[in-house]
Amino acid sequence: MSKANAVYAQSGGVTSVINGSAYGVIKAAQESGIIDNIYGGLYGINGVLEEKLVDIAQEDPADIERLPYTPSGAFGSCRKKLPSLEKNRADFERIIEVFKAHDVRYFFYNGGNDSMDTAYKISQLSHDMGYEVTCIGVPKTVDNDLPVTDNCPGFGSVAKYNAVSIREATFDVASMHKDSTKVFVSETMGRHAGWIAASAAMAARNEEEGPHIILLPEIPFQEEAFLAEVEKIRAKLGFCVVSVSEGLQNPDGKFVADAGTVDMFGHTQLGGAGDFIANLVKNKLSIKVHNALPDYFQRSGRHIASKTDVEQAIAVGREAVNLAAQGLNGQMVTIVRDSDTPYAWSVGHTDIANIANKEKVLPPEYIREDGFHITDAFRTYCRPLIEGELWPDYQDGIPVYTKLMRHLVAQKLS
Amino acid sequence: MSKANAVYAQSGGVTSVINGSAYGVIKAAQESGIIDNIYGGLYGINGVLEEKLVDIAQEDPADIERLPYTPSGAFGSCRKKLPSLEKNRADFERIIEVFKAHDVRYFFYNGGNDSMDTAYKISQLSHDMGYEVTCIGVPKTVDNDLPVTDNCPGFGSVAKYNAVSIREATFDVASMHKDSTKVFVSETMGRHAGWIAASAAMAARNEEEGPHIILLPEIPFQEEAFLAEVEKIRAKLGFCVVSVSEGLQNPDGKFVADAGTVDMFGHTQLGGAGDFIANLVKNKLSIKVHNALPDYFQRSGRHIASKTDVEQAIAVGREAVNLAAQGLNGQMVTIVRDSDTPYAWSVGHTDIANIANKEKVLPPEYIREDGFHITDAFRTYCRPLIEGELWPDYQDGIPVYTKLMRHLVAQKLS
Repeated sequence: MSKANAVYAQSGGVTSVINGSAYGVIKAAQESGIIDNIYGGLYGINGVLEEKLVDIAQEDPADIERLPYTPSGAFGSCRKKLPSLEKNRADFERIIEVFKAHDVRYFFYNGGNDSMDTAYKISQLSHDMGYEVTCIGVPKTVDNDLPVTDNCPGFGSVAKYNAVSIREATFDVASMHKDSTKVFVSETMGRHAGWIAASAAMAARNEEEGPHIILLPEIPFQEEAFLAEVEKIRAKLGFCVVSVSEGLQNPDGKFVADAGTVDMFGHTQLGGAGDFIANLVKNKLSIKVHNALPDYFQRSGRHIASKTDVEQAIAVGREAVNLAAQGLNGQMVTIVRDSDTPYAWSVGHTDIANIANKEKVLPPEYIREDGFHITDAFRTYCRPLIEGELWPDYQDGIPVYTKLMRHLVAQKLS
Repeated sequence: MSKANAVYAQSGGVTSVINGSAYGVIKAAQESGIIDNIYGGLYGINGVLEEKLVDIAQEDPADIERLPYTPSGAFGSCRKKLPSLEKNRADFERIIEVFKAHDVRYFFYNGGNDSMDTAYKISQLSHDMGYEVTCIGVPKTVDNDLPVTDNCPGFGSVAKYNAVSIREATFDVASMHKDSTKVFVSETMGRHAGWIAASAAMAARNEEEGPHIILLPEIPFQEEAFLAEVEKIRAKLGFCVVSVSEGLQNPDGKFVADAGTVDMFGHTQLGGAGDFIANLVKNKLSIKVHNALPDYFQRSGRHIASKTDVEQAIAVGREAVNLAAQGLNGQMVTIVRDSDTPYAWSVGHTDIANIANKEKVLPPEYIREDGFHITDAFRTYCRPLIEGELWPDYQDGIPVYTKLMRHLVAQKLS
């Protein structure tokens, strides 16, 4: 097989460990024997469309080594979703044109459902246009909602962030509830799938520890039953900690807190499920309530990332290059769980078509019968994913994170 | 000096390191030669009023050793502020009565301004009543607003939490801003003093790194100037990160976001300065904004506590006992800065009367002339306070924190 160039790009909401996948792709590309130069798309697919390709070879190798310790997207990410081929053939043709101009025959796209859809279309069109580009998807999403793969890099760390934070807040409220805050609410990310809200359950070592109630997007919100549950827990412990998904919905299918704005993917932009629940408790039960909204802190909290998650992020990056070297195309790397206890995993792969635009929600066996908490089966699933710590270095009290120089390759097109 | 018993109690909002002070008091009490038994007030001064005293001798020594690694108040804290002696002599007399019943001659009260006021009154009244109780204040407040002392245990860790979190969010937004969030807002604690909001500045290693704007309670909020500053930074960097104090005020002296409810100390209960700023930017500049509200996560984030802070928390606890052993009374332990670079500190002490009900706000030399940021003088002040890490142990992916058994001493009064 003759050598060609490769593009790696990051897409969608960034995570604590997506740069670990970048690291895996880069290292494997350099060792692969099939890839000459590896370029980074500046701000995801935008960088390809605008012919802004980062020349990774010019980066300081020490900065590359620090990527797995750095949150966010080192090459810049994007929210751009390309419309269907029929409606927007020009963009796809431009991508192939740029790839052709730079002798790019490999495209590694690191993202979630929407990104896999883009990768799938590029792979299809490149074939139709007679300039074959091998497209391999590298999974990434804190939402953990990709099908086929056992879990998604990014999730383990956001889960650990929420578990640790809720654990600390529970200790806080437990010590203050006597004559101060009685109910604490934290809103987690996770628009349509309750994986992140559920992961807060890992904060507890026993039933007395919070979160005591978990409000999932999979379970329509029942106000009266919820308030009764809060009162039941308060009667027992004196206080109550609630983890609520930003995507909590009323029985009519509307988000309890709908900000009304829409992002570029056509998703409703949310905010306020935590406020909604906090105000409800305050007004109906007349007690002191506090609420937290960790927002981006949770998805970029590399300082408390899971070691399992970092290792898997690197592994799926490496495997993407391996698959390409094996001549596979239109595949996404997956994580396969070989055993729960002791936890054992390996990498696999699946057709991107099995992933694109599909969402895996929390299955019923992970949700407690009354809908207000999770089951031991979920705990067994989630525990290994938050396991282990891999601290970044610190200097002057804050983590040392990498910023790449991002020198661009000379443009060849107009 | 004949031996007697001592009570240690925690008061006000808890911190990541207040249990470090508990540890310091307990260890020094056991070594002191002046203290027979050390008891913990269950939920602060409430435990004394209700004669609910925790027998610390019955705790597992391993749990005591873990206190400096555990956030929250291990003995329970309180928001109770005793009214003036004239208005509420009965409560104070009850406290002395309980102390007398349990041969308590030493009272170590671990809290902020309000708590020092309580300690001061107990010390005064015990003298008047002819049952001398030595009252020593142990400083604690994330707000860092106690006078005399160079800084307050609890502040260094909340500063480090905010610095690290804002650093990570800045990396996140920098990588997403191309076609997603342009402005990120985080609301910090700090009702009347801007120390915590200012501490977010420690997130940056250079001017390009966030936070780019800091809104302090010391500076009346000027809407137009603020929006112009946001636009200036966006024009330069493409995005902007804002740290705003919960106590931000309009020029008329009213909080920009006044929830209208009042806590037991008569403080207005706040919430929403971050929402207010985020909505303002969204509505006036028509761009995508995200905001975070770390709330209790910041004050109980022991997983990212500052080593300096933990060490100082322990030291002020130990020194409280030393002062009592030296026969001093009505004193609060202070932290004295002996040198900025290299940072050197020692413990000192001051009359509680110099502390009670006084607040130290951010001095003008720490605030940039335009009011939208801090100065290098503040950086020099804050840097050593967030320095160093002292990780708790982890098990199953979450920190190992102590829960004391809290066996109560047999009651002697009705």
